[in-house]
Amino acid sequence: MAKRTGGSTASKRIKERDAATLKKIVHLADGVTKRTFSKKEPVIEIPTRARSNTIWDKKVGILRMGDGTQERQLFNLNQAKQFMQTMLHASTIKDLIEAEKTSSLRGVFYKAKHTVAGTKENTFDTQDESDPILEDLEVSMGALREELHIFAENRGSLVGNITIVDKGDEINCRRMGSGGYAIPSIVEPDVIEFRKCEARFVLHVEKGTVWNRFNEDRFWEENNCILTHGAGQPPRGVRRLLQRFNRELKLPIICVLDCDPWGHYIYSVIKQGSISLAFESSRLAIPEAKFLGIRAKDYDECDLPDAVKIDLNDNDIKRAKEILAYPWFDGHRGWKKEIDRLLSNGFKMEVESLITKDISYITEQYVPERLKAKDWLD
Amino acid sequence: MAKRTGGSTASKRIKERDAATLKKIVHLADGVTKRTFSKKEPVIEIPTRARSNTIWDKKVGILRMGDGTQERQLFNLNQAKQFMQTMLHASTIKDLIEAEKTSSLRGVFYKAKHTVAGTKENTFDTQDESDPILEDLEVSMGALREELHIFAENRGSLVGNITIVDKGDEINCRRMGSGGYAIPSIVEPDVIEFRKCEARFVLHVEKGTVWNRFNEDRFWEENNCILTHGAGQPPRGVRRLLQRFNRELKLPIICVLDCDPWGHYIYSVIKQGSISLAFESSRLAIPEAKFLGIRAKDYDECDLPDAVKIDLNDNDIKRAKEILAYPWFDGHRGWKKEIDRLLSNGFKMEVESLITKDISYITEQYVPERLKAKDWLD
Repeated sequence: MAKRTGGSTASKRIKERDAATLKKIVHLADGVTKRTFSKKEPVIEIPTRARSNTIWDKKVGILRMGDGTQERQLFNLNQAKQFMQTMLHASTIKDLIEAEKTSSLRGVFYKAKHTVAGTKENTFDTQDESDPILEDLEVSMGALREELHIFAENRGSLVGNITIVDKGDEINCRRMGSGGYAIPSIVEPDVIEFRKCEARFVLHVEKGTVWNRFNEDRFWEENNCILTHGAGQPPRGVRRLLQRFNRELKLPIICVLDCDPWGHYIYSVIKQGSISLAFESSRLAIPEAKFLGIRAKDYDECDLPDAVKIDLNDNDIKRAKEILAYPWFDGHRGWKKEIDRLLSNGFKMEVESLITKDISYITEQYVPERLKAKDWLD
Repeated sequence: MAKRTGGSTASKRIKERDAATLKKIVHLADGVTKRTFSKKEPVIEIPTRARSNTIWDKKVGILRMGDGTQERQLFNLNQAKQFMQTMLHASTIKDLIEAEKTSSLRGVFYKAKHTVAGTKENTFDTQDESDPILEDLEVSMGALREELHIFAENRGSLVGNITIVDKGDEINCRRMGSGGYAIPSIVEPDVIEFRKCEARFVLHVEKGTVWNRFNEDRFWEENNCILTHGAGQPPRGVRRLLQRFNRELKLPIICVLDCDPWGHYIYSVIKQGSISLAFESSRLAIPEAKFLGIRAKDYDECDLPDAVKIDLNDNDIKRAKEILAYPWFDGHRGWKKEIDRLLSNGFKMEVESLITKDISYITEQYVPERLKAKDWLD
């Protein structure tokens, strides 16, 4: 096969990262063999991924995993299968890294799935068994999934005042037409490098259709920014890229999402991480992210027509209250006010609803005015 | 607002297309006013979008809409609301075109939604009412949704041996890194132009994760092609772009999809169109599209392990039989054999399952060998 073109610096850094990950896998296997040869029961120690072991780090502003761990024993009928699965996946990952290739969660599942010789027992029956084992490996080795050469789906796109180098290809995001640059799943610094950037902030919108409105109106050019979307709840690649924009380029991340519990939840995941993936927060969360809108006050403040109202249902009300109890919203005056207002309004509003004012009201008035007034929640 | 940069030829063609569409809207409205002033009942004629009015055009190899039409009358209690809605949407589309802007289905719904003055009646209550009215307008005016300035969601991406001009921006798809060019929703010739193209065919795969495998292995470079995916059932933008590659650049479109009724259905929509959107087939369908795999025979022919088998459920069996009865599969010996084999196998197989042979088996052996042998269904 042809080798990829591109900078030798990048490929050197990929090799360094991969060497570090390989060392961790070998260390894991060594631990097991050492215990075995010294006639101790083979055991792996795995940090506990559960709410009980999730800590809200107020100072840093992210969810963190605590120090709790649990043992996975080979000589325990309840744990033997998972022990085998963990070793099997570690071995697949070693193969992937050595081959300098990546795969999907589904691909890794297939790679490891087979009938154990001489039995009718499968190593894995469904992908539901396989994914958590990969998460176990991530936390055990302190390596992001992407460092284990596993990619998630690609969703979301980008356009704006920045030049990016992706695997050696220089991509001028100012000249990406109506489509944009498709954000890949693995955006670690050895794959994606940042070059010239004039942008002063990132505007992240929820949906592709809203992104189209902003791109068509050349909002990023007028307002000197980068424009991204994540097609709903942004996938890992988008979250990590936003975090890198924030940390490395010091760009504020400003979100325009729906005024409903789902929009608030998307924001909370971008900002602090999710409980199920708390161990990855330090690599994905952006505590400084801001929520510009849509705000519950907008119905009055923007003088919107009744057409924008979508009644809250029971589930919305339940979710809104749950979100208000999240440690990072709890005690936050702005968010308490926001969610209280949503509940007293009795209706939610979508970003698209601002079209009732004018096709480009959102890009020409709403967002520029709020930006100027620094009128956002954080 | 800043005007977009780019070719004046493109903007001239956009203006010509828009002028033609505007003329159709005015013609529609004129018809109504003329009848009214001559004291006839206001009526619009709308082609019937139903299975009964769908014709399988065997010669061309696409689904077509027949000549059946139905009247929409203002003086008919059952039709008055839809009559009003049709006029309202036609007016919104006129506004969009005149403002040189585009919007989403959801945006157009919001734009038209309001309470009728002096009543408690809304023009539209939900988007479910709004979308079919837009389809009525498409068929009545013989204009694609994109020509009415309405975009669908953007999904799917592209990389390969072609240069594209998107709204005046030249995009070298050979230098798009790991992410690729995000395929926009509107890909009409006045937005997207083709420049230098060395590619000899297009390889279209179902999912982004599979696309990643092909891109990582630089399949498009090795095999001189364009590589696309549509994140499942490809959205309109992807289908239309594939059709343009096929018609204008004479590139064969070769699909790699799952071996299951869903994969077969995706292929059938790419190839002949769907019944619900039969009126758009001539602009979206690609009768020449080929189905390279995964094939039911592959379990034996590629010597795959049992791990790849996923049992067919009752719904799969039902769908497989329905698809076999589609007019373009009915009587097609190759497809009859294919679906019979799927049913007699009793299991489906996903593209990802080929990883059980080797990580890059699909890109280095499976697809190249089948291409060489022209071993596909069409």
